[in-house]
Amino acid sequence: MLTLHYAAGTCALASHILLEQTGARYDAVRMDFASNAQRSPEFLRLNPKGRVPTLVTERGVLTETPAILLYLCQTFPQAGLAPLDDPFALAEAQAFNSYLCSTVHVAHAHGRRASRWADEPEAIAAMQKKMPQNMAECFELIEHQMFRGPWVMGEHYGLCDPYLFTIAGWLERDQVDIARFPKVAAHRERMRALPAVQKVMLDHA
Amino acid sequence: MLTLHYAAGTCALASHILLEQTGARYDAVRMDFASNAQRSPEFLRLNPKGRVPTLVTERGVLTETPAILLYLCQTFPQAGLAPLDDPFALAEAQAFNSYLCSTVHVAHAHGRRASRWADEPEAIAAMQKKMPQNMAECFELIEHQMFRGPWVMGEHYGLCDPYLFTIAGWLERDQVDIARFPKVAAHRERMRALPAVQKVMLDHA
Repeated sequence: MLTLHYAAGTCALASHILLEQTGARYDAVRMDFASNAQRSPEFLRLNPKGRVPTLVTERGVLTETPAILLYLCQTFPQAGLAPLDDPFALAEAQAFNSYLCSTVHVAHAHGRRASRWADEPEAIAAMQKKMPQNMAECFELIEHQMFRGPWVMGEHYGLCDPYLFTIAGWLERDQVDIARFPKVAAHRERMRALPAVQKVMLDHA
Repeated sequence: MLTLHYAAGTCALASHILLEQTGARYDAVRMDFASNAQRSPEFLRLNPKGRVPTLVTERGVLTETPAILLYLCQTFPQAGLAPLDDPFALAEAQAFNSYLCSTVHVAHAHGRRASRWADEPEAIAAMQKKMPQNMAECFELIEHQMFRGPWVMGEHYGLCDPYLFTIAGWLERDQVDIARFPKVAAHRERMRALPAVQKVMLDHA
């Protein structure tokens, strides 16, 4: 059985939603980041990076959202969550998720986690100040160039949707008005209407 | 036919090496980042992100290193560059590449590209100052926790190897002594001995 380690307010929400949508049996273990549970020796033995999502499988541990999302799609193909027989379409979806992890999530992290990249308080404050502008630029690109609708990659719901939903959910906290991005805002409402999303959101409250 | 747009000194080297190793016919178009060719209207029509690697296929344009690497492996399965029939092993490889793009490449970018995340010269200098420490911490984790040897994922060469080779190639420039990481250093020598790597490196000189 699969066990997902997650924390509320993190990108683990994306993997949690997709896991629920595979229909598989799984355990979800909520971690308390406020008490730094992700730095405990027990958890670091599981995932030396000290991050979530961390997915424990019978074969071993998997990390990193884009890898976990594709793994779930491939392990439960009957759920139809990725274009597994079309390498080009799959690569388009992977490129979208890769942009989210390497650019958008990184832009967001310069808010609360700016101390990763500089020690001086003034530098941290400067990164925090610029963060909303960078998040808005990322979502301009998503809204006008990348999002197809009604789902991220077009007609078919899949592995990009819970990930965009997760990161778009950070916009208010990041001082960006989601109303500037009508397609992204409508996608969020579409996601919120899904029973699997409603069920998982209760665990992340 | 595939066309790869690349620039010297960038992560496009990873896709270039793997493309060469597929045995496919392709064109490689070198771009001049010094003249900001990646911001030209022509190139932005191809890739609105203004980045490389950008891979033009008969079906359309692909971006983002992890997506391009997997696409090449799936499109040329006879080259044996990924464990395509084993979702868990593939996810482990994807997790490695995802860590490179979202954490290690990002750490590196706080050197020359720190102005992405703050405007004040003092803040940019503070990020540049901390960058070598962050790069070293990333490579500690790779050396001691992630790298299996002789190739990244163990006995079989594949889609993680040219990507690690590319980013490890930035260590000297980032003021980190690769001798601190003997497995990574030996991997670099192993890579340099491959004919495909020697051929592609000439294009990136």
